[in-house]
Amino acid sequence: MKAVKVGLLGLGTVGGGTVNLLARNRDEITRRAGRAIDVVHAATRHLDRPRTCSTAGIRLTTDLFEVVDNPEIEIIVELIGGESLAKELTLRAIDNGKHVVTANKALIALHGNEIFRRARDKGASIGFEAAVAGGIPIIKAVREALVGNRIEWLAGIINGTANFILSEMFYESREFGEVLAEAQRLGYAEADPTFDVEGIDAAHKLTILASIAFGIPLQFDKVHIEGITHINREDVAYAEEFGFRIKHLGICRRDERGISLRVHPTLLPARQLLSSVDGVMNAVMVKSDALGPTLYYGAGAGAEPTASAVVADLVDVVREFTLEPENRVPFLAFQSDALSHEPLLPLPEIEAAYYLRMQAMDQPGVLAEVTRLLGEAAISIEAIIQKQPTPGAEEVPVIILTHRVREWQIQQACARIEQLDSIQGYITRIRVERLD
Amino acid sequence: MKAVKVGLLGLGTVGGGTVNLLARNRDEITRRAGRAIDVVHAATRHLDRPRTCSTAGIRLTTDLFEVVDNPEIEIIVELIGGESLAKELTLRAIDNGKHVVTANKALIALHGNEIFRRARDKGASIGFEAAVAGGIPIIKAVREALVGNRIEWLAGIINGTANFILSEMFYESREFGEVLAEAQRLGYAEADPTFDVEGIDAAHKLTILASIAFGIPLQFDKVHIEGITHINREDVAYAEEFGFRIKHLGICRRDERGISLRVHPTLLPARQLLSSVDGVMNAVMVKSDALGPTLYYGAGAGAEPTASAVVADLVDVVREFTLEPENRVPFLAFQSDALSHEPLLPLPEIEAAYYLRMQAMDQPGVLAEVTRLLGEAAISIEAIIQKQPTPGAEEVPVIILTHRVREWQIQQACARIEQLDSIQGYITRIRVERLD
Repeated sequence: MKAVKVGLLGLGTVGGGTVNLLARNRDEITRRAGRAIDVVHAATRHLDRPRTCSTAGIRLTTDLFEVVDNPEIEIIVELIGGESLAKELTLRAIDNGKHVVTANKALIALHGNEIFRRARDKGASIGFEAAVAGGIPIIKAVREALVGNRIEWLAGIINGTANFILSEMFYESREFGEVLAEAQRLGYAEADPTFDVEGIDAAHKLTILASIAFGIPLQFDKVHIEGITHINREDVAYAEEFGFRIKHLGICRRDERGISLRVHPTLLPARQLLSSVDGVMNAVMVKSDALGPTLYYGAGAGAEPTASAVVADLVDVVREFTLEPENRVPFLAFQSDALSHEPLLPLPEIEAAYYLRMQAMDQPGVLAEVTRLLGEAAISIEAIIQKQPTPGAEEVPVIILTHRVREWQIQQACARIEQLDSIQGYITRIRVERLD
Repeated sequence: MKAVKVGLLGLGTVGGGTVNLLARNRDEITRRAGRAIDVVHAATRHLDRPRTCSTAGIRLTTDLFEVVDNPEIEIIVELIGGESLAKELTLRAIDNGKHVVTANKALIALHGNEIFRRARDKGASIGFEAAVAGGIPIIKAVREALVGNRIEWLAGIINGTANFILSEMFYESREFGEVLAEAQRLGYAEADPTFDVEGIDAAHKLTILASIAFGIPLQFDKVHIEGITHINREDVAYAEEFGFRIKHLGICRRDERGISLRVHPTLLPARQLLSSVDGVMNAVMVKSDALGPTLYYGAGAGAEPTASAVVADLVDVVREFTLEPENRVPFLAFQSDALSHEPLLPLPEIEAAYYLRMQAMDQPGVLAEVTRLLGEAAISIEAIIQKQPTPGAEEVPVIILTHRVREWQIQQACARIEQLDSIQGYITRIRVERLD
């Protein structure tokens, strides 16, 4: 069979990795796909920059639209990142009758509904496995392998930078800022780390995962987002005393009241498999009614892991070339006319157990006051630790684990506790999930 | 679109689970697949037996061939197990122009080459995700998600019974026989546990995994198979002292000399994610050149987890209905004319590190003799533990960890060491894999 002709937008880290992988494993890929896949045209910002890949046989241009408009090309691989230009190029590629493979999570999370609508009108395939958890085939697993299941919840370590920082804080007892600086030196964190440490990147990915898990439209604006910047090493250490690890998770869950989407630091039981996922690695756990819990683990970023997902999408798209769109795997796992509009729970209605840490005056009766206020908010307590004061200190840390409650109960109770004269400053609050 | 009509062979555990799942999640499945999937005809041994599923709307028969010959049926789901009859039915279904989904690992491992040849001739799809690791989508991951990768090795906990027994031996310090009896009481082990504890079931699955990983024909007879019956709780405890867990693994690995296929108890570093996979759960780790290590974890058996894989295969087959066979995912991941005939390494050529345990007379000079003989076989030692003798005992256990060697070196050295007057009985040998 004829080789498939691919046009590449962007020759950076992932673009270079994709070119390298397609070249190095050309024989292996052809033996599987039944035909070769060749990048014939690529757009790059600078034609004369040193590259991580050979561009022999590839027509290079600085004009992204030249690639998208090239009639010879059947599939466009979008790897420029960002939103507006990527969206314009993707829509134009679709209008030109091409299929699109992208690693761009912001593009799909924010504009996927529009892109998929256009793609359906034009019969285009859109592959976006590389947009979530790098090379881990989590999109494929949820959309195809779990097709017979009703999914209950999904929880994932889907940002490698945040996971690296929390792992270092745990194993090396270091502070957030110190580890972040090291992550930046090692290239695990960007110069501006906001997207990673504030949870925005994870929220893009969770938006996509929630849609394919529950068959709902993409709704990034409904995700409750918390980063890890307020986690300190005391919290990491106290969590360990209770038998927990702190992980930054994206969680979506469906119950009878609705669906919740949230990204936040979470105490997880240390024996949970997800707790053993360290460093820059990613993993997603999915709980579904027939299959029960499954977990998918691997590299969530990097040139070749991401390229691995891009190539898998390319082969899937090639296999679908002759398939009527209604027989293809639907973009969001469910047929477009079968997406549901279940309510998304507002934050106060979300249910979780809680880790609370507060600074209390070292005097009798404080615990009685705190527990009375928790009781009045109908919050039941699982465990309390009151630390010994350090010599000379007037305050002691008090750490409380609650049973599952609604978010509004915690907010109400914490506001009242913070007004006590015997409590100093604000209460640190971290959600606890047992994932069972 | 019209509902797809399915015929079921076998209404036991997995058959009942499949009927239940298709009924309970009919809406969810239809929203995804774009059409309903209905079991309309099922063969069962006894028509009047109490069942785990409702058979309303399903025509029942005791004649398996009646289902296979029913012209109305598009897909046959084979869940009777065993070899000969299952093979006959499968080939007849293919000849009748039907597609087949099966959970039968022996059928595929032993007769897959012939079945796939027939299916190619007739344009039939054959789904067998449920045959390996229950509901974990490991076939899909390796065949589709890793399509761009050259796979280096794959190692899996693919028999839940063996993993349950080894987990209990570790956590409860119990002996093999005692735990096996409990597993039989709990229904985790068969009355005749041979297939599970002797590694035959795992070898069937490994045969399939190796073929889709490396693009080689199915070669069950080339798998080196060891069970767990000779593992005792001392080995489990000593392994822990060295920082290892003992797991029963199926391993296939490709290096410049060839491919090795083996199923055996293995010492794994305790911090390896696979070491944390306990009880009846399964997990498979795959190392490939672009993506690096990935791991897939979940329930490897049971009615609904296995049914989950059956339903996923059904939907995949339905989506492929109108696809020319050359555009479908190939049965063994690689196009049939692109399978390779790389040499499979004979056992003496397999490379692994080794855990050796021997009973030595408590007298000076024994260690010197043992280490001299290991040195003469060019085996280098990583660690030695010599235990204190229990009061009154004349022998002490000596445990040795070696670096990586060839199997023949270990065989040679152990034969010579076993001849020493100062060594009692046989040497226990367990392979060590670091999976890095």
